[in-house]
Amino acid sequence: MRARDIAEAYPVVGVDTSALVAARLIAGDRLPGLVVTDRDGTPKAVLPASEVVRFLVPDYVQDDPTLAGVLGEVPTEWLAGRLRKATVAELLPVRPAELAVLQSDDTLVELAATMARLRSPLCAVMDGKRVLGVVTAARLLELVCGGQPE
Amino acid sequence: MRARDIAEAYPVVGVDTSALVAARLIAGDRLPGLVVTDRDGTPKAVLPASEVVRFLVPDYVQDDPTLAGVLGEVPTEWLAGRLRKATVAELLPVRPAELAVLQSDDTLVELAATMARLRSPLCAVMDGKRVLGVVTAARLLELVCGGQPE
Repeated sequence: MRARDIAEAYPVVGVDTSALVAARLIAGDRLPGLVVTDRDGTPKAVLPASEVVRFLVPDYVQDDPTLAGVLGEVPTEWLAGRLRKATVAELLPVRPAELAVLQSDDTLVELAATMARLRSPLCAVMDGKRVLGVVTAARLLELVCGGQPE
Repeated sequence: MRARDIAEAYPVVGVDTSALVAARLIAGDRLPGLVVTDRDGTPKAVLPASEVVRFLVPDYVQDDPTLAGVLGEVPTEWLAGRLRKATVAELLPVRPAELAVLQSDDTLVELAATMARLRSPLCAVMDGKRVLGVVTAARLLELVCGGQPE
């Protein structure tokens, strides 16, 4: 079994994609994150769902989390408003984690080793320069131990 | 909207749960990870899916990822075998990431701020000492920007 046999179709966003669109893609399919490509289509980074959540929170609350309790209930529109004005590039951490990238003929062990090393929730599988699909950690676990008898 | 209104039923595993059972829970529902409780039922840690994948990979390959290429194709049973012999406690990193724990009446902003600070894919919502449910980053994003018009 090779990476190409395991990779699944998966939304890929560009650095210029609206942050709100990216958030909805994650929400709609309950994804652990998204693969972000550069303007030339090269995979650039993983955008973990937690980084999008981080962007919802105003900087002054991130700096002092006790303020979150003081704010009380805020309308979800207020939180979504921050995403509406931003692009995916703004959601990425200053030093994004290294993206796990595999080639289509890489083996299951190579896939697991790369995801393990980068502690990444997903990796991009390439066919040359094109993103063929994505493998999530959950998908890999399904293949390895999903259907086996006890 | 409070944490208790958002929390979803979610599998919770103990430190003594079989690693294979934990892996299958993640795989079956494509979860970003699991909440792990201590022997007294107290939430102890998040077990991210990527840590379970890490456990599939033998130590000597983790130490030298180029070996993964040399191994070639290995049967999935061989990889699952490592999980079969282990418990969840063995899957947890030596220094597990701090668990995001919210109380049932915490607000959406408190939830987002805590997940943001810990960069966690999920958090446990407590009703006193009992785990009421879990909120994933994707679920939070669904609530904040799922159904809004552009």
